[in-house]
Amino acid sequence: MQDKYVIIVAGGKGLRMGSDSPKQFQVLCGRPVLMHTLDAFYDYDRAIRIILVLPDVQMVYWKNLCTDYDFNIPHVVVSGGETRFHSVKNGLSLIEKQLAAKEQNWMDNVLIGVHDGVRPLVSKSLIARTYEQATLEKGAYPIIPVTDSLRKSTGATAKKFVSVDRSKYFLVQTPQVFWADLLIAAYKQDYKEEFTDDVSVVEAAGTCHPTTVEGKRENLKITTPIDFAIAQILMKCKT
Amino acid sequence: MQDKYVIIVAGGKGLRMGSDSPKQFQVLCGRPVLMHTLDAFYDYDRAIRIILVLPDVQMVYWKNLCTDYDFNIPHVVVSGGETRFHSVKNGLSLIEKQLAAKEQNWMDNVLIGVHDGVRPLVSKSLIARTYEQATLEKGAYPIIPVTDSLRKSTGATAKKFVSVDRSKYFLVQTPQVFWADLLIAAYKQDYKEEFTDDVSVVEAAGTCHPTTVEGKRENLKITTPIDFAIAQILMKCKT
Repeated sequence: MQDKYVIIVAGGKGLRMGSDSPKQFQVLCGRPVLMHTLDAFYDYDRAIRIILVLPDVQMVYWKNLCTDYDFNIPHVVVSGGETRFHSVKNGLSLIEKQLAAKEQNWMDNVLIGVHDGVRPLVSKSLIARTYEQATLEKGAYPIIPVTDSLRKSTGATAKKFVSVDRSKYFLVQTPQVFWADLLIAAYKQDYKEEFTDDVSVVEAAGTCHPTTVEGKRENLKITTPIDFAIAQILMKCKT
Repeated sequence: MQDKYVIIVAGGKGLRMGSDSPKQFQVLCGRPVLMHTLDAFYDYDRAIRIILVLPDVQMVYWKNLCTDYDFNIPHVVVSGGETRFHSVKNGLSLIEKQLAAKEQNWMDNVLIGVHDGVRPLVSKSLIARTYEQATLEKGAYPIIPVTDSLRKSTGATAKKFVSVDRSKYFLVQTPQVFWADLLIAAYKQDYKEEFTDDVSVVEAAGTCHPTTVEGKRENLKITTPIDFAIAQILMKCKT
C-alpha cells in the first residue's frame, strides 16, 4: 500500500498584506479558502496525510477558524519559512522525521505532493491524475496552455520584445507530486532564487525529470480580488 | 492635426459557434459586448474613425441590434475575411481608399489602431497611452506580465518541459497602433500562419520595431463563459 502526503503551502506574506484578510482566509461560498483546499485532498483520499504550512503569526487565527467552522479534517500545522522554498522544506522535515521512525526502507512507496493553499478549486480527478503519474514517473505536475499572444524581452533595449511561438509554452499549476526520497533529497540543496516551484528544485538536483499531466484552467491561484471573484463564480457552478 | 482610425475586429467564427450567441453580441451590463468596445474608442476621441469588421452573416443582425439599442456611435462596417489577418486587411483597404482620395501626403500624421471586438473593458487611458506612444515610435502595443510559472516544451520528448524565466515573458493585448503607411504596407505581405497579431505582421515587414506600453489585466479578451463572468464583475466595479 502506498503512503501519500500533501504539503499545503499557505502564504508567506500572511498578515503583512494590511487590513485585508489574507486570501487563504477569505470566505468563499461559506468557508475560508484554505478549508476548501484541504477538503479537496481529503475528498481524494481519506488516508492522505495533510501538512499545512502557515506563518507563525497566523496559527492561532487558523486554530480559532477551525473551531468556529467546526472544521475536522485531520491535518498537522507547521511553521512557514522566509520563502516558499523554506516553507516546503519545513513541511518535508516533519515528514522525514515521521518516516524515519518507521522500518528500514521507509521511503519506499511514499509520495509527497506540494500544493498552493490558494488553489481551492483543484479537482479530485486532477489530484488523482497527478499522484498516479508521479507513481510511474517519479514526479508529475499539471500544466495548461498559454492562450494569449506571448512575447519575450530581448533584454537588449527597454520596451523591445520578440515574438515567440506560444504553442510551445505552458503555465504551471499544483499539486506537484514526487517520490518522497527524491523530493526530500532535492530540498537539501542551498536555496536559489530561481526555485519558483518544486519541479525547479527537483530538476536542479538532477535526480529525476518530472513529467506533466493535463491541468485545468479552473484550478486557479487566488492572488487578486479578480481571482477571488472568479473563484466565487466557479464554486457556484459546482454546487 | 492627427487623423486616427481604429479597426475593431469582431469574430471570424461568428454564428458557427452554434446555438449560443457569439461573444461579441452577448449582453453585458445592459448592452452587447461590441457596443461597449466601440464606446470606449468614441469616448477616447470623438473624432476617431471606427471601422468594424464583421462576418457577412452577422451584418443584418448587428444593424438590427443598433436600432434596438438606439446605438448611434458613428462607424463603418466592413466584411470579415477567412482569418484575423484577412479581416484586418479588409479594414485597411477601406482606409487606404479614403486616404487616397485626399491630398498628396495623405498618410502623414495618420494613426491606425487594431483592437479585438471582445475586449470591451479597454480603458480610455490605455487607448490614449498606446496612440501617444505610436505617434513617437511608429508602432505601440500593450503588454502585461506573466504571473504563473512558465515552462517551455523541448519538443524532444512528449511531456518533457524546461523551466523558463517568466520575468522575461509578457502577454500581448490590443489596441495595437501604427503609423498608417507602415501598417498598410505590412499587410501587403502574403499571409503566414505565424501572423497572430498586427505586431507580428509589421515586424515581419521589417519596416519598424513597435514598442510596448503597460497594459491592464482588466483589458481581458472574452472568449469563454468564465471570461464573460469576469467581465460582468469588472463592469459592475466601474459603475
